[in-house]
Amino acid sequence: MSQPRGEELAELQAQLSERFTTRRPTVAALEERLFHPMPCLDHGFVRVVDYMGDDNAVVQAARVSYGKGTRTANDDRGLIRYLMRHRHTTPLEMCELKLHVKLPIFVARQWIRHRTANVNEYSARYSIMDREFYLPRPEDLARQSSNNKQGRGEVLDADAAAEVLRLLRRDQEQSYDTYEKLIDEAGLARELARMNLSVGYYTQWYWKVDLHNLLHFLALRIDPHAQYEIRVYGEAIASAVKAWVPHCWEAFEDYRLGAFTLSGPMLKVVRRMLAGEPVDAASSGLSKREWVELMAAVRPEVET
Amino acid sequence: MSQPRGEELAELQAQLSERFTTRRPTVAALEERLFHPMPCLDHGFVRVVDYMGDDNAVVQAARVSYGKGTRTANDDRGLIRYLMRHRHTTPLEMCELKLHVKLPIFVARQWIRHRTANVNEYSARYSIMDREFYLPRPEDLARQSSNNKQGRGEVLDADAAAEVLRLLRRDQEQSYDTYEKLIDEAGLARELARMNLSVGYYTQWYWKVDLHNLLHFLALRIDPHAQYEIRVYGEAIASAVKAWVPHCWEAFEDYRLGAFTLSGPMLKVVRRMLAGEPVDAASSGLSKREWVELMAAVRPEVET
Amino acid sequence: MSQPRGEELAELQAQLSERFTTRRPTVAALEERLFHPMPCLDHGFVRVVDYMGDDNAVVQAARVSYGKGTRTANDDRGLIRYLMRHRHTTPLEMCELKLHVKLPIFVARQWIRHRTANVNEYSARYSIMDREFYLPRPEDLARQSSNNKQGRGEVLDADAAAEVLRLLRRDQEQSYDTYEKLIDEAGLARELARMNLSVGYYTQWYWKVDLHNLLHFLALRIDPHAQYEIRVYGEAIASAVKAWVPHCWEAFEDYRLGAFTLSGPMLKVVRRMLAGEPVDAASSGLSKREWVELMAAVRPEVET
Amino acid sequence: MSQPRGEELAELQAQLSERFTTRRPTVAALEERLFHPMPCLDHGFVRVVDYMGDDNAVVQAARVSYGKGTRTANDDRGLIRYLMRHRHTTPLEMCELKLHVKLPIFVARQWIRHRTANVNEYSARYSIMDREFYLPRPEDLARQSSNNKQGRGEVLDADAAAEVLRLLRRDQEQSYDTYEKLIDEAGLARELARMNLSVGYYTQWYWKVDLHNLLHFLALRIDPHAQYEIRVYGEAIASAVKAWVPHCWEAFEDYRLGAFTLSGPMLKVVRRMLAGEPVDAASSGLSKREWVELMAAVRPEVET
Repeated sequence: MSQPRGEELAELQAQLSERFTTRRPTVAALEERLFHPMPCLDHGFVRVVDYMGDDNAVVQAARVSYGKGTRTANDDRGLIRYLMRHRHTTPLEMCELKLHVKLPIFVARQWIRHRTANVNEYSARYSIMDREFYLPRPEDLARQSSNNKQGRGEVLDADAAAEVLRLLRRDQEQSYDTYEKLIDEAGLARELARMNLSVGYYTQWYWKVDLHNLLHFLALRIDPHAQYEIRVYGEAIASAVKAWVPHCWEAFEDYRLGAFTLSGPMLKVVRRMLAGEPVDAASSGLSKREWVELMAAVRPEVET
Repeated sequence: MSQPRGEELAELQAQLSERFTTRRPTVAALEERLFHPMPCLDHGFVRVVDYMGDDNAVVQAARVSYGKGTRTANDDRGLIRYLMRHRHTTPLEMCELKLHVKLPIFVARQWIRHRTANVNEYSARYSIMDREFYLPRPEDLARQSSNNKQGRGEVLDADAAAEVLRLLRRDQEQSYDTYEKLIDEAGLARELARMNLSVGYYTQWYWKVDLHNLLHFLALRIDPHAQYEIRVYGEAIASAVKAWVPHCWEAFEDYRLGAFTLSGPMLKVVRRMLAGEPVDAASSGLSKREWVELMAAVRPEVET
Repeated sequence: MSQPRGEELAELQAQLSERFTTRRPTVAALEERLFHPMPCLDHGFVRVVDYMGDDNAVVQAARVSYGKGTRTANDDRGLIRYLMRHRHTTPLEMCELKLHVKLPIFVARQWIRHRTANVNEYSARYSIMDREFYLPRPEDLARQSSNNKQGRGEVLDADAAAEVLRLLRRDQEQSYDTYEKLIDEAGLARELARMNLSVGYYTQWYWKVDLHNLLHFLALRIDPHAQYEIRVYGEAIASAVKAWVPHCWEAFEDYRLGAFTLSGPMLKVVRRMLAGEPVDAASSGLSKREWVELMAAVRPEVET
Repeated sequence: MSQPRGEELAELQAQLSERFTTRRPTVAALEERLFHPMPCLDHGFVRVVDYMGDDNAVVQAARVSYGKGTRTANDDRGLIRYLMRHRHTTPLEMCELKLHVKLPIFVARQWIRHRTANVNEYSARYSIMDREFYLPRPEDLARQSSNNKQGRGEVLDADAAAEVLRLLRRDQEQSYDTYEKLIDEAGLARELARMNLSVGYYTQWYWKVDLHNLLHFLALRIDPHAQYEIRVYGEAIASAVKAWVPHCWEAFEDYRLGAFTLSGPMLKVVRRMLAGEPVDAASSGLSKREWVELMAAVRPEVET
């Protein structure tokens, strides 16, 4: 499916060749990308298959809420920046994106935690799974981080990586061989046989979400703390969102991705510093962890 | 706004005259209706301003879930009927409708109870309300039902209706005169002055919802037990849905609107009757109310 | 954890031994069951760890909505039956149940599709997975149904079952051996190593849901068409719900579980039959599948 | 109801006098407040009628997600602060609060915009509304703000306030006289007669919400930009939340209420200032509005 063939290829061709006339808000830069799979990991992809709304739909919804007066006070870009800065997010819900995604099951399990979305997933109760599983590239095989419970540390050396990949591949291949045997020879029900496949196997789904919830998803999933394997999908989606609603994306970058929230205690420290008072970890009143987070944000040039 | 003028008219003209080329699923029968206000009550309207998906989007989502095998087993219409009959509703969530609605506040208060939707409402904190309130037609002025706590009974006679309308109009006009005075003369904040206006005044909003939740809304709101004033909007929306997704609408009519749910105890009674046993209220084992409901559904020709 | 030991056992003992005084609605029959794990499958369980509300909370909420008049017209049980029959479900949302569940990942993947709930799951990014996987009992190893794409048919014979279990166990053990090796020897990050484990491995979570959404979950998951492995959990939960809100449960059994919905076309057929007209598949106007479904419901004694 | 009498008083007495034994997490400081109405505005109130969970339920849910290792690394209070600082909000969803609220309709209309909650409202289709409407205190009658479209400016002088109150009272009383006449004399259906009542009339509902969504509600509704009339309710609820989950509340105050989010561009300005560079509005690269917001936050002692 990552290299579509046969039936899939025919469907893709049909989608790409048809043109319709519409009165709906239409975004030329996204139309160009429509249906084209963006490759993710070794066998996955994400592709935009439908959308509703554009930057102007956000402006229109904000203006019905905040009154006609906004029309003169702000241009559209300024209004969108104002909404994003003050977390007035309901106008963003007026836009909707629909994706077709092929992804490993363990990525799907993180993704589905975002509940405000619509999803239809390939069912291994009804259908046979394909022999397609995720194998990381050697450069993505990292050690457990020593200072971060959920993260990765340094990359494995070449020999260790080769051995890891050999083991992963061996088990995945064997479990699929068994899966086939269970279905073809024993005649076992699909809903039972699938239990032998790992969470590295690929599934696929249609996923539809409004822009507000999509940006929340992206804020979490393109964050450096997100697992690399879901970040790849987040970044592919982000590139489509940027083409679709450029003003919203720019405001999102400035006010969400690039933002740093000062807690009340942090804010007091910044005020003292800006008033010329020397403040260090001890005199800050912050916990050690908060002090380090604050310094990394506001004085990145200083070693802590 | 029900008779758009000036600024609104210019915006409407712009929306109607623009045409774009798109690869997205497009429904010609709905495109024709796009942006056109459907009048509701004396000053209200509902108009479709955007949509995503069509009957085929439902089929496509069902097929990713239920497997390719469904492709041969059912044609599209049959598959949609199967989904509706068995309440497999997630594929319906792949379609989305966006409406612009002008409606009395008391109708808005019923409407907003449907939580799975996106809404941006005109704000009386920011903007001045218009002098537009709902006055029923004389034929819609009904007495409290004597046997139904929430319903209407017979229509008022002409004199009584005229007096009711005189009182309603007098109070609504006076409260708006006061509203204007509070704002213009006393300079009172809008968010306070609005408190003098009744729930009969018109507000407006953009409302966006997926097809599954929209059909649930319609099932409740075009039901004969729904208040007439919201049913009018429900029926206008229903006419647009019918043009938009005709297969889904037909299945919805057969399996939801026209359906009757037999409870376990009712089902037993029907079985006994079909086996030739004479059953009456006393021998049915049903409560009186359930017996009446059952007879009205399966033996409508019999007086109960 | 299915046989709690050490730390878990200590926590369980603490939960069971503490008693508090409260003014909150309290259900003695559920208090008795609180915290006790109900075993499910070979290593799983579900246990109630908290609840809010009772039958009376549903009645109280219905009475604020439907007015004081309901107080005289119905006793509590009758009011709850009325609500369930007419799908007035918002009062059911006033009750909440919180569960601790240990379950195979493939069951968790079906379960999580119910989006209106709160969940916190054990994270294999942060923590090491236990060597616990699901192995069906021989009598649960069924063939793929020949007439139902998603279901099971006849049970495997003893030899075939033994061979299936041998293969499943071999692959699951091997993949865990590899998982340990990846973590302990190669030092691979947990978030990567877990990819080698199958969807048959156990995970656990806290899951909290309101009574309306819980009953919807149960209606789907204790249905004979649900996969056996999730039905086991559904039935355990059902037994707790029955102890918790007995009037709601009784009404749910009569009006949801035991109910059959006649479509509009089916209703016409039943009317004709009850009026004495002989109707067969051909003259019914129903599709073949609908005719079979109708006959199975209303004339179960007749072979079709 | 604000001064409960008769039937309400009897129900309140019953609720206050009953005591039960439970194994559920129980918070003594909230038990004391249970059922007691906290007065809001002239006739409204909010009272806690049920709750589920406590600070420890948040910790327990976080630990299942983030692993046992968190047990040694943080004490409970530190873990809750960590969750709040990093917006790991799902553990907060494990707590639930149920309120009984009496409030003016225009406040209810703002409140209901928070969709992730359960609500059962008094129905004016079924029941007669009481003659109770909101009249502000003279000191709450403020002019429209001249620099803030949605806000209030200076308070009216005594004479102007008296005249405003006279007009409000006159119209509200008259519209209720008409309402009574429509129902009692004309026999008009309640669902129609209510249309004559203003959004200043009191309604009531049960409202149930999880702690995450409740804190989001409070962050917006106790903000100085929220309308005074809903802020009063927000502050009453906040006092109950503080008694219920003191660690969560403390962390919420430090990391949400007292926090200030630096946008990417603002963060750059703060870095330049802290590195000793003089920056003014012109050289900051910020829009004028952003510059003012930033200075007010980090250099409140400087006039801008």
